[in-house]
Amino acid sequence: MDIQELRTRTPDHWMRATALRALALDAVAAANSGHSGMPIGMADVATVLWSKHLKFDAATPDWADRDRFILSAGHGSMLLYGLLYLSGDPEITLEQIRNFRQWGAKTAGHPENFLARAIETTTGPLGQGLANSVGFAMAEEMLRARFGRKLVDHYTYVIAGDGCLMEGVSHEAIGLAGRQALSKLIVFWDNNGITIDGKVSIADRTDQMMRFKAAGWHVQEIDGHDPEAIDAAITAAKSANAPSMIACQTHIALGHAAQDTSKGHGALTNDEQNMAAKEGWGWTAAPFDVPAEIKSWWEEVGARGAAEREAWEARLAEASAARQKEFARVMAGETPKKLSATIKALKKQVSETTPKVATRKASEMALEVINPVMPETVGGSADLTGSNNTLTGDLGVFDIGERKGRYVYYGIREHGMAAAMNGMSLHGGLKPYGGTFMAFTDYARPAMRLAALMKTPTVFVMTHDSIGLGEDGPTHQPVEHLAISRATPNTLVFRPADAVETAEAWEIALGQTATPSVLSLTRQGVPTVRTQHKTANLVEKGAYVLAEAEGKRQAILLATGSEVSVALAARELLQAEGIGTRVVSMPCWELFEQQEESYRRRILPPAGPVRVAVEAGMRMGWDRWLCGERGRHNKAGFVGMDSFGASAPAGTLFEKFGITAEAVAAEVKALL
Amino acid sequence: MDIQELRTRTPDHWMRATALRALALDAVAAANSGHSGMPIGMADVATVLWSKHLKFDAATPDWADRDRFILSAGHGSMLLYGLLYLSGDPEITLEQIRNFRQWGAKTAGHPENFLARAIETTTGPLGQGLANSVGFAMAEEMLRARFGRKLVDHYTYVIAGDGCLMEGVSHEAIGLAGRQALSKLIVFWDNNGITIDGKVSIADRTDQMMRFKAAGWHVQEIDGHDPEAIDAAITAAKSANAPSMIACQTHIALGHAAQDTSKGHGALTNDEQNMAAKEGWGWTAAPFDVPAEIKSWWEEVGARGAAEREAWEARLAEASAARQKEFARVMAGETPKKLSATIKALKKQVSETTPKVATRKASEMALEVINPVMPETVGGSADLTGSNNTLTGDLGVFDIGERKGRYVYYGIREHGMAAAMNGMSLHGGLKPYGGTFMAFTDYARPAMRLAALMKTPTVFVMTHDSIGLGEDGPTHQPVEHLAISRATPNTLVFRPADAVETAEAWEIALGQTATPSVLSLTRQGVPTVRTQHKTANLVEKGAYVLAEAEGKRQAILLATGSEVSVALAARELLQAEGIGTRVVSMPCWELFEQQEESYRRRILPPAGPVRVAVEAGMRMGWDRWLCGERGRHNKAGFVGMDSFGASAPAGTLFEKFGITAEAVAAEVKALL
Repeated sequence: MDIQELRTRTPDHWMRATALRALALDAVAAANSGHSGMPIGMADVATVLWSKHLKFDAATPDWADRDRFILSAGHGSMLLYGLLYLSGDPEITLEQIRNFRQWGAKTAGHPENFLARAIETTTGPLGQGLANSVGFAMAEEMLRARFGRKLVDHYTYVIAGDGCLMEGVSHEAIGLAGRQALSKLIVFWDNNGITIDGKVSIADRTDQMMRFKAAGWHVQEIDGHDPEAIDAAITAAKSANAPSMIACQTHIALGHAAQDTSKGHGALTNDEQNMAAKEGWGWTAAPFDVPAEIKSWWEEVGARGAAEREAWEARLAEASAARQKEFARVMAGETPKKLSATIKALKKQVSETTPKVATRKASEMALEVINPVMPETVGGSADLTGSNNTLTGDLGVFDIGERKGRYVYYGIREHGMAAAMNGMSLHGGLKPYGGTFMAFTDYARPAMRLAALMKTPTVFVMTHDSIGLGEDGPTHQPVEHLAISRATPNTLVFRPADAVETAEAWEIALGQTATPSVLSLTRQGVPTVRTQHKTANLVEKGAYVLAEAEGKRQAILLATGSEVSVALAARELLQAEGIGTRVVSMPCWELFEQQEESYRRRILPPAGPVRVAVEAGMRMGWDRWLCGERGRHNKAGFVGMDSFGASAPAGTLFEKFGITAEAVAAEVKALL
Repeated sequence: MDIQELRTRTPDHWMRATALRALALDAVAAANSGHSGMPIGMADVATVLWSKHLKFDAATPDWADRDRFILSAGHGSMLLYGLLYLSGDPEITLEQIRNFRQWGAKTAGHPENFLARAIETTTGPLGQGLANSVGFAMAEEMLRARFGRKLVDHYTYVIAGDGCLMEGVSHEAIGLAGRQALSKLIVFWDNNGITIDGKVSIADRTDQMMRFKAAGWHVQEIDGHDPEAIDAAITAAKSANAPSMIACQTHIALGHAAQDTSKGHGALTNDEQNMAAKEGWGWTAAPFDVPAEIKSWWEEVGARGAAEREAWEARLAEASAARQKEFARVMAGETPKKLSATIKALKKQVSETTPKVATRKASEMALEVINPVMPETVGGSADLTGSNNTLTGDLGVFDIGERKGRYVYYGIREHGMAAAMNGMSLHGGLKPYGGTFMAFTDYARPAMRLAALMKTPTVFVMTHDSIGLGEDGPTHQPVEHLAISRATPNTLVFRPADAVETAEAWEIALGQTATPSVLSLTRQGVPTVRTQHKTANLVEKGAYVLAEAEGKRQAILLATGSEVSVALAARELLQAEGIGTRVVSMPCWELFEQQEESYRRRILPPAGPVRVAVEAGMRMGWDRWLCGERGRHNKAGFVGMDSFGASAPAGTLFEKFGITAEAVAAEVKALL
């Protein structure tokens, strides 16, 4: 690449883009870690996009109708921080740039959505940003359909790298986006031909343009260092009636000694080479310094959207008070006032009619009353709608020309679904929930972890949550998946025992603003155990006494989900032998952990009775509740799984794996 | 579809294929669960493949040079069981067919590789079989290069459904197969246009043919009910110089009332409709009955390969004794005798030189001595070769025309890598290991679970195993991933403390024949803690006393990996205050659990000293070791993570998150 030619062809553009290059080079060198080459290579694309197309107002980075900019190739984080600093974002100051990758800085190694308002999503695990963007673009379509073009009308722009496109989740994302013709989604592929291990071609020779075409995308290819070509391609992409992919031929670490090499992907820290690169770029400013005229040009870019934001605010002010209030409510993620009464009414009805239903069915019963009062819910399933019980009658199906539809047929794409749900949630205005089998938590896992890290209150509806799934066998029977979700920070894992607890779990999950929830639900029918209606939400405590011991309390049984009724039956057996037995339902460990110690000690007294936990999953984690945290402990045992399951009818499996009332009672007696 | 026309066009073929249809219909109806439609739709393809092309000998289903047949659309398991029963597989008897999906049957809901020799791999989680098949095909190339065409020369055939092709892992698999030009891999796409939620088109409109072409595949499209077209397509695929995809237009549940509907995907249990379907097919035999001439035709199909097997055995017998022995050794998965001495020599050297190296580097040191004595190892990384330290000098890179290369550049495809490793391991003759960052266990997770279920001794090299990763931040810092792998049945999770333990862990991992291993390795340097050479492999015990208390034993510190040296430093602080402190290194919980109780009690005496565990991960699971299983317990505490990490230099993070010797000593003193 001839740098001189680039410098002279469009000199103003060159220097403006090179401000991004220099900042990235300086910040990475100062941190002695990070990725210099990508920001250097994509600076031209970013400069044209931000200055000529991106609708944003640097002073108000979270204005609702802004265009979304997603750096899926999150390792190139200095590109984003450079753009924000130069354009005048109030949070990403020069001080932050200087503290790149240091403790407490907003300029983390990879962009973290919770550190600055302008960071739309957390990226770094490759492909996630791209997959989030599909959710962002769906959210825009849904909200535009609901609130009208005057309030919602924006694009979602993504920069994706070779890694993003090699990851499997990219396939799920582009398939879904293509199927839904998300025409306001525009993806730039940083086609630099380099990965960490060397040239892309050592591992991949996929024709990406053909691949995107196969998925129904609008595709263009340009020189990613030619500002006019970039501008023209974006203009064309904006008017396409399909999602758009712009393949940008770029040079990683352009103009540096490490250009076009895998070394250029990483941290360029050689002073001499860095100075030589700057010289070649024609950049003479001191490290971290940006000439005033360039900085002020960028600040004008940052201020360009203020008028658009003001016009939008004026349009919002013209809407009815009710509409304004509703828009504000859903964008803030607040539940409607009606929700609480709705859940209480359902609980009362269930307590009275005591149905024996699977908790997946109970979840549907809850959704049947929730969805009508919460127009912001968006349901879906990864091709298991009838099994996950996620579709209620009033939702309508989201489709081309049916953008008011609130149910998404995600296809057999658990990972893409979870990542798209995260995107919808991050966009704001929607409460996404989506279902698959609990065992396929595995497929969705990378996005479920990011939901927890990003604090997106997505709801994962995981049905068929044990060997109770039956004949499909061990591949479909979760045993370790409760432990997996419980081990993940900032995740509420609910395993409700019946239809009452299921309704309560839904109420709590929908009320979250910064924590995702996992609902672990049965395939098989379970009896109603909460037969006394209480208006209070008992699941909120995480664990509570469901049945008290009669006579001297000698045993405490701890159980969740379908095993709560097993524990109750064991209690009957034990009480019949005069062994006073308390049953504690523990639908949510995390909430129990958050209770005051006095409450926890009331439910699980530190000394005295033996404790036996029963759950059709692995023991991992249960010792926490069997033993107490510190000091005095109880004799304790566990009835559950210690291996994978098997293919057979569910009843047979519970017998064969010894998860029965008799086994629980026997364990108690062995301990006494 | 006009059944009459199919019946009359090729009547013999029709009835032979329809035997598969009838068995599937009967078995699913008897089980009252399962998937009838797929076997019915793909019976023609399977019949042509098995009778005209597949190299197999039903009586010896595990003959080494057989063609591999992989039913990636595993829910159609009755197709496989039908083929095996009809062709005379010794294990899949009529009794087994009648017991489809029942306790103890080999005919599980989804094919389970460990239940019958003829079942190559466990399928069910969609896309896995397809991704395994890439490993099978790579294994064939590698072994052919090593042992010659006379001993290794076979195809890998796969039946994949729409679900397989929608899953992200399919993208990783076909990209890798295309890049490596795996010309002996032939995939049939059961293009029936139907999924559980309805028509495929409600969720996906990808042009699959174009997509496979984009990945470098040879592509054909045929009528999947036309035996001549099927035959011709397979013949063409076999001579292509790329992996081949044959798009088979089929009708799910062909000829049944549920044909071409999502109902046809599931269990067809309506007697009347089933009888009508059989009538339409011209099938008059009683349920589970197969007319003698059809059964005997299928048995001839099953016997067809006996001559080929015998010829192969004769060729094997012609090889030198050493070659025969080596072939038998690697196919049996036995480690070479030299391995033990090699590891001991390395351990001795490390104990004497006491290097301060990261355990990822220690892993490379181990591989440098292992790979030369184990020609069956196949290394690789998901584009993090230099970080995972998985490439040693002697391996050579596997590539087109370089099939003796033993290192695979898997690309940014953690999931595809893990699934391909499983396939290589299942093929036999190779010991695959592959690396990525520990946090990206999430991406590989579905295949890692299957390794455990399938009992494949794959080795997952997971480096950068804590906040010690530093500046890349929380997306790249595992905190819950040790718990995730430890919660998974049949998985050995090693977190070695230094280069000696790392060598020992490798020795154990390579010695497994039915259990995968996860090596959790540091990015950052750690001191050698095993400075006294012992020939015994101490990691084999799972946990052992690394440093004994001086004076009265008041505390036991439990630690793994990089925190073992933290525990040793804490011990120094405590001993200086006269608090006798034992340090237990716990590199592998699962192995410790397998020790006799007397050993476990010797290491962790049930009463007396306080226990404090230190590990830079979540507490989940540790209470097991802090409290003891039953009865008497100790006061106990934990020093580790209870949240996600952050972006900063590693040293700062350990300070800020309080994982220090001082914090451990303080916790002990608080408990005393």
